[in-house]
Amino acid sequence: MALSRQPDELIEQARQGSRTALARLLTMVERGGSESEAVASLSYLESPPYSVGLTGAPGAGKSTLTDRLITAARTGFPEIDGVAGLENDQVAVLAIDPSSPFTGGAILGDRIRMQEHATDPTIFIRSMATRGHLGGLSLAVPDAIRVLGAIGMPTVLVETVGVGQMEVEVASAADTTVVVMNPGWGDAMQANKAGLLEIADIFVINKADRPGVRETRRDLEQMLDLSNTDDWRPPIVETIAHDGTGLDEMWATIAQHRASLIARHELEARRARRLAEELRRVVAAQLADQVEKVAGGEAFNAQVEALVARRIDPYRAAKALI
Amino acid sequence: MALSRQPDELIEQARQGSRTALARLLTMVERGGSESEAVASLSYLESPPYSVGLTGAPGAGKSTLTDRLITAARTGFPEIDGVAGLENDQVAVLAIDPSSPFTGGAILGDRIRMQEHATDPTIFIRSMATRGHLGGLSLAVPDAIRVLGAIGMPTVLVETVGVGQMEVEVASAADTTVVVMNPGWGDAMQANKAGLLEIADIFVINKADRPGVRETRRDLEQMLDLSNTDDWRPPIVETIAHDGTGLDEMWATIAQHRASLIARHELEARRARRLAEELRRVVAAQLADQVEKVAGGEAFNAQVEALVARRIDPYRAAKALI
Repeated sequence: MALSRQPDELIEQARQGSRTALARLLTMVERGGSESEAVASLSYLESPPYSVGLTGAPGAGKSTLTDRLITAARTGFPEIDGVAGLENDQVAVLAIDPSSPFTGGAILGDRIRMQEHATDPTIFIRSMATRGHLGGLSLAVPDAIRVLGAIGMPTVLVETVGVGQMEVEVASAADTTVVVMNPGWGDAMQANKAGLLEIADIFVINKADRPGVRETRRDLEQMLDLSNTDDWRPPIVETIAHDGTGLDEMWATIAQHRASLIARHELEARRARRLAEELRRVVAAQLADQVEKVAGGEAFNAQVEALVARRIDPYRAAKALI
Repeated sequence: MALSRQPDELIEQARQGSRTALARLLTMVERGGSESEAVASLSYLESPPYSVGLTGAPGAGKSTLTDRLITAARTGFPEIDGVAGLENDQVAVLAIDPSSPFTGGAILGDRIRMQEHATDPTIFIRSMATRGHLGGLSLAVPDAIRVLGAIGMPTVLVETVGVGQMEVEVASAADTTVVVMNPGWGDAMQANKAGLLEIADIFVINKADRPGVRETRRDLEQMLDLSNTDDWRPPIVETIAHDGTGLDEMWATIAQHRASLIARHELEARRARRLAEELRRVVAAQLADQVEKVAGGEAFNAQVEALVARRIDPYRAAKALI
């Protein structure tokens, strides 16, 4: 079957298992524009997948951890305390690198480690950067997650590369957010400073075979004592990603968090709050786009001339344009 | 005379020499809002001062350099090749620290070194952060520069603390932009990576008594060879700020650049380009402000409800709101 260029046909082909169709859909989302909006509109109508975000400082071992987590995720979410489970017959990974405008470099290197899954048709791994999507990754990633849901992926793992503002935003827009750190004095403080404490549903101390696990755990517990954690106190899981230690516990903890969110009706509430935030961003992005279209136009140039001649000031000129 | 709260009266009082009135005007600009716009509108109608921006990596010695440069600046701009000079009977310094939401900390420490000028009524030094100005420092700083011009300051030195995106933006919005670096292998490359090569009108190698001056100069010259520098090739000046070496040459080079800009009619052209950019930012900031007002409103909440029910997607919802 020839690959379509129509979003609706591509979604159908991707549903039937075409990875090339899925890749093309995600490229459309990255690129933005009208095709991207058409894809977003179509996929929005389907229910979203369960999303798990992983973030943490570079070097914390997130790639290896994500790699290992795929295998655990394939076992699915079990039923917990009456909350229905979820079969993960397929698992998708989005690896986000906001610092690279074009996919390439380090993240592709990391992806090579994921090669063991490359031939497994139930696993889909994709690096993602922003290439023109209006509003950047903070809008492109939710769109991409919904595309993956619309074509039938029950669960999506979203891994970010660094801990910049954008990465924190992207990771915290998942249903369950996992913050990865390493043992050692000060790592917990750093995470706190980077705003990771507030967004964490689960903490993972990776490379737990190194010294300092107890100190990091103690620092975290102290910080959690000061936070409001009435409904869910973020558990701390120790892992050694390179040999797989703790990965089953990490997945079980993610499943616990999912069940807790659903039991407390907090999953829908969270998603509604995220949608309100997303709508705000889309409005801002569309307005910004209008500014770009206005700039360079005749009315804009006339105001610039008036500004240069000091007949008007920038605030009144802007009001006149709006 | 009691200090007014009216922008027009404050400007008059500041013109007559009241530093308290000037300080209050600049606080209004920092805070943003309608008072800030009133100040901006009034000061916009006067001709702007000549502005000199200094930027460079933290630790490059910008504070000490600025401190020394004040004394050199007081000698004024001489007439050069028929371009009229400018008497600097007063000199103002704006020290910009975008990383600190409230003025304080390191930059106040640096300001202590400027105490020798504290009792000199012809010199005005002010630290500035953004406290609420719509559009942040990239709009507040041009406003503040114009206030200083409107009350009679012929020349304003703008010093930034770091080399983040915002600092580079602020420093490059001056009439003459000076990039400060230190001797040593790689410093020039770092500056290039930070986008400083494109914005530099003049390079200063400060701490020139340390080894590596020749290498830094060579690196810079090589990079300049690859750039388009037909009209003005950024000169490289060596200084030792702490004993004043090279400061007269640095000021003379700034004066040369000013004369060259004016002779080439490039000063007005640059200012017009900056005004166009500023107008674009003001429009964007005012639109963003409107988004904030829309969000939380009834129409917005209705769209969020429709989003949650998946009756509409975020892009169509945003269009409906706009």
